[in-house]
Amino acid sequence: MPLRVVGVDPGLTRCGLSAVDVERTRSASLVDVTVVGTASTVALDQRVLAIADGIEAWLDRHAPDAVAIERVFTYTNVSNVMGTAQAMGVVLAAAARRGIPVGLHTPTEVKAAVTGSGQADKATVTAMVTKILRLAEPPKPADAADAIAIALAHAWRGAAPGSLAAASSGTAGGLTPAQRAWAQAQAKASGGGRRAEEARLRALAKRGR
Amino acid sequence: MPLRVVGVDPGLTRCGLSAVDVERTRSASLVDVTVVGTASTVALDQRVLAIADGIEAWLDRHAPDAVAIERVFTYTNVSNVMGTAQAMGVVLAAAARRGIPVGLHTPTEVKAAVTGSGQADKATVTAMVTKILRLAEPPKPADAADAIAIALAHAWRGAAPGSLAAASSGTAGGLTPAQRAWAQAQAKASGGGRRAEEARLRALAKRGR
Repeated sequence: MPLRVVGVDPGLTRCGLSAVDVERTRSASLVDVTVVGTASTVALDQRVLAIADGIEAWLDRHAPDAVAIERVFTYTNVSNVMGTAQAMGVVLAAAARRGIPVGLHTPTEVKAAVTGSGQADKATVTAMVTKILRLAEPPKPADAADAIAIALAHAWRGAAPGSLAAASSGTAGGLTPAQRAWAQAQAKASGGGRRAEEARLRALAKRGR
Repeated sequence: MPLRVVGVDPGLTRCGLSAVDVERTRSASLVDVTVVGTASTVALDQRVLAIADGIEAWLDRHAPDAVAIERVFTYTNVSNVMGTAQAMGVVLAAAARRGIPVGLHTPTEVKAAVTGSGQADKATVTAMVTKILRLAEPPKPADAADAIAIALAHAWRGAAPGSLAAASSGTAGGLTPAQRAWAQAQAKASGGGRRAEEARLRALAKRGR
């Protein structure tokens, strides 16, 4: 049984939401992806409510094992960081209220996990997500690829609750026994671990150019 | 019938919540005040959920006509602004979901409204809140005074939804007819308007020194 991860690329104008199933072989399939949000002309409380309604419906529909959110540090202006953080707030509360473990990942971590390089550009991330999920064309809406990449990164890498690494290293208090067993089997199957995986991804990216 | 305003001084560690009744004569009485929040050692999703649970219970208990939140612009570090904005996010969503109009006020606006000076220090704000509400001693918890000041500022001043000025100038789409009638009567009763009110507050602050 796969691990289902909901990925969230937070924002008030465009908040990407994905649902991805990741097998113990690390192969992944796209369940669903969308973008929710409102124009900046809408009143702030209604904007935040739109994100809250969107994520709650998404979590109830897809019942994920984990939620992964992009953690963003630096912005050119304070108004952006406030809106992104307000969206994060309602996503965090929605997950916590449902008892779903949450992981935060920086953009660098997400890019490294899906492309092998923390400095990858947006086009490379979209191309890799399309390959990894064996999609005929890039995911739509166009800016939804990040939400998918976040979910993949969460399943594949390090110590956040609900991720495979956290489960296999025994540090994930939030996992069910079934999730833990799945993760341990997956960790065993993945063999050489993250370094081999990153080399594999780099080779895959190179072939794609 | 008084206008009931819930004031929120947002934060994850200490989030001040007040409920204040403001009469059409501008006299105000404290209904309730508290501080919710968790230590910074608690997991982020649980911290945000604690704020969401706290504000939702508070709104359901006090059924306010409006919610007023402190709007904060500048911080010394990004970690603070993220936490404050995440707390704001769940407060905004909780109010919007209940159809309660929300107003945001800067610290300068709040200080000016309750002390007559936008540069007032914390002790002056606490002293003025204590006087305005005719309390025998400063409100407890000690850092709850700001949440009360925000509610008072909202009821007394400018154009935010649910505030008196917004109602009397006819710009508040979110008000019920009863709220609007109350606000218009209040605006008439307050006579000389904001300038006289601020002079009165400055005189009151001066006598208190």
